[in-house]
Order: sequence, then C-alpha cells, then structure tokens
Amino acid sequence: MMQIEVCHSPLSYPLFHRDESIVVVVDVLRATSAICTAFYHGIENIIPVTEVGEAMVYQQQGYIVAAERKGEIVDGFTLGNSPFGFMKPELKGKKVVLTTTNGTQAIAAAKNAYQLLIGSFLNLQTLGEYLIVQNRNVIVLCAGWKDKFNLEDTLFAGALANYIQQRHEVEILCDSAIGAQHLWQLAKNDINEFLENSSHRKRLSHLGLEEDIQYCLSLNLAPIIPVYNKEKSWLEAMKS
Amino acid sequence: MMQIEVCHSPLSYPLFHRDESIVVVVDVLRATSAICTAFYHGIENIIPVTEVGEAMVYQQQGYIVAAERKGEIVDGFTLGNSPFGFMKPELKGKKVVLTTTNGTQAIAAAKNAYQLLIGSFLNLQTLGEYLIVQNRNVIVLCAGWKDKFNLEDTLFAGALANYIQQRHEVEILCDSAIGAQHLWQLAKNDINEFLENSSHRKRLSHLGLEEDIQYCLSLNLAPIIPVYNKEKSWLEAMKS
Repeated sequence: MMQIEVCHSPLSYPLFHRDESIVVVVDVLRATSAICTAFYHGIENIIPVTEVGEAMVYQQQGYIVAAERKGEIVDGFTLGNSPFGFMKPELKGKKVVLTTTNGTQAIAAAKNAYQLLIGSFLNLQTLGEYLIVQNRNVIVLCAGWKDKFNLEDTLFAGALANYIQQRHEVEILCDSAIGAQHLWQLAKNDINEFLENSSHRKRLSHLGLEEDIQYCLSLNLAPIIPVYNKEKSWLEAMKS
Repeated sequence: MMQIEVCHSPLSYPLFHRDESIVVVVDVLRATSAICTAFYHGIENIIPVTEVGEAMVYQQQGYIVAAERKGEIVDGFTLGNSPFGFMKPELKGKKVVLTTTNGTQAIAAAKNAYQLLIGSFLNLQTLGEYLIVQNRNVIVLCAGWKDKFNLEDTLFAGALANYIQQRHEVEILCDSAIGAQHLWQLAKNDINEFLENSSHRKRLSHLGLEEDIQYCLSLNLAPIIPVYNKEKSWLEAMKS
C-alpha cells in the first residue's frame, strides 16, 4: 500500500530516502510557491542552484537569475523569491536560475529521487490527484529553516497527506506525518492565523511581505506540477 | 528572557547547541522514564553508554548492566529499559550501566551541555519548577526514533514548555516548540489515546508492554531530577 512520510528538513533526508519513492519538496514561504507560480505563468525552466556564487556565474553569462537569502533579494540581483516576481510577462518562455536559503538546498538534497516534484499550497490538489494515480510511496521533504523544522512546510505536508488519505488507500506510519496531519487539522480553517507566531512568517512580516504570505497560503492558485529533470538538472512543468 | 527550544532528534542537536543552555533529554518510551524511576527508587548512579559492546565490557567487569535495542532486552543481559526493572530493592544504592536504542545516544549528543538533565512525564513538574528557578535558556532534546521525530517525546516537550509558560516569563520563538505545544494541547486530556497510532507506541504494544506505556505516560510519579555529572560521566540524582 502507498505510504506517506514527512521529512522535516534536508539534513534528515538521508534517513528517509528510498530508491522507489517520489519526493515532494516544499518551501511554502516562498521558494516552492514561487516555482509553482513561475510555471503557471509560463516560465519554461528553472535551474536551481545552491550557492550565490554559482548564481552569479550564470548572471555573468546572461541568464535571468533570482537569488534570495534570509528573506531578502541578494545584493546584485533584481529577482528574489517573491512569487509576484515570477508573474512578469517578460519572463514567459524563459529559463530562470534560482537560489534560495532553504528551498534550493532541499531540491539538491533529493535530486536523485525516483521523481522529484515541487509542492506548495498553490498546487495542492493537482499534486494530490497526481500522487493518487501514481500510487507510489511519497516522501514530503520540508525545506524547513536552515535544517530546522518549520510550521508552514509541515502544515503543507499534513494537508497533502490528508488530501490523499481522504480519497485513496494509504498507510501513514510515520510519526512526523501523523503530527503534521494533527497540525493541519488545527490550522486548516485559517492558516494565516495559525501561523501568527511562527518564526518565518514573522520574519517575512517584518520585511513587509504580507501580500506574499497571503498569496503563498492560498489553495490551488497555480494548478501545475513542477518536476525535476535529472538529465538537464532543471525544473520544468509536467506535461499533462 | 528565558527561551525554550525543542530539538526533535540527536542528529539535529548541533544546530541547537548553545554553550549556556540547559539541555533536557527526553525519551518517554522508555529510557528517560526508566532513568527517573531508577533514581526515585534509590539507584545511586547510571552510567550511560552508546554501544552494546561497551555495555558488555562493563558486565564482564561485574557491573549491573541494562541493555535495550528496538524495544527488547539485548541477548545476554537481564535488564532492558522497562521502568519496572529499575524498581527492584536489590538495585538500591547501586551503579547501573545503561545502553538503549535512542535515549543514551541523545545523552551522548549533548553531554557537553552547560547542564544536562533527564526529563519524562514522571518528573515533569519537578523539572518545570527547577527550570523556572534557573531562568536560563532550555533546549528539550527529544531522543526520537533512530534520529527521526517521534510523537511522545515531542508531546513531553510541549508539556514542559507549557508548564513553564503558564508560570514564568518565557520566549518561545522556535517553530518546533510551538508545534509541540499545539500537539500537547490536543493530547493532554488522554495522552495514551492520542498516541494510539504513533509508531513506537505500536511497536511496544506489539511487544506486550502496555503496562510500561501506561506508566511512562503518567505524570509526576518520580519527582526527582537526574543530572549528568561530566567529571564522572554518569547520571546522578540532583541534590535538592
């Protein structure tokens, strides 16, 4: 039977990896929300890189590059990881290089997975439906914050587990998945309110990013599945 | 202001360590419950070791040795980590060597902490009162299960954070502490029922250890604080 496990941070991913499992990487605030948004708005590929230095090299080669650290756009770049930055019409059909504090590290940690998908509240339902059809073990890999647990990614993991469990036979044995589902039950009626005291929500709020937060906590606004192409080392939209 | 953080497993402890923080190690099912019980019933010292091989060497030297792996007493030993094993009158005033799957690994991970204390539901209130008086930053280090998150240790972390927060000015910024408090609110009226589906509770239940589980989930039955003595590399009861 299909199993769902939840891994709280890239640091722990080696404990969870199984050769045949699909990995869903999530960084709700904001990397994977931005990635879903980007593909929904027609960006062709996203090249995730872990280091700012690597991003700079791409920029020197003429690539469009987005770089975020600790919630802010890195000096010398014009795009960060605000989803709104990826809605621009001039980016349609383009390749974009992306580096973020946590999200791109999580992608790097799981890039050898059987299949690596990108999840966020923005594509929750589309992702849930796809995973049900696959009927294969799933590991939700939370980007967390600098390898620590965070609430918003865990809530997404709980929401996804719940979506699937309500519609499909699934085995949830993993304590972190059970915990995530409990937290989601507490949060689902008002995710923003539930996250009021969470560390990263506060961090972004102090940076004046309320609009980003509201958007990233909305359900199903970008019904598309970004998937990692191992041969090309980039993300692309899954062909339906 | 005093801060409380929650670390879900020994693997993550290096991300949390601060030279001036008190660490509370918890392994509810069953290592730290057994340790609290042992001191409450008059055992003099517990020497925690991480490897079964090391435990065997102590046994050959004539020490009383308790050894558990995956919930069962290791072949060749007569004590495991059932708290009831540590209530025996013949152990009073004795030194006992202990190795367990997770608990003694967590102790080893944090043995250089400013102060390392042992927590369980059995000494929750005594521990809470002591920490309030200290008014120093606290890291609750959950032993987890083989470096993964587990529910019962997280519940204890939430319960301790809650106990302190209701009686003392404290700052809880850490998402894992906030999550633990939410889970504790859901569980507190019937911890056993809440843990019904948790992985380790099931594992022990399959091993016929219901009585152990009931005992380990009881509050304040062993009001004593075991503390790690760095010079001696053993645990002892804190003098009040």
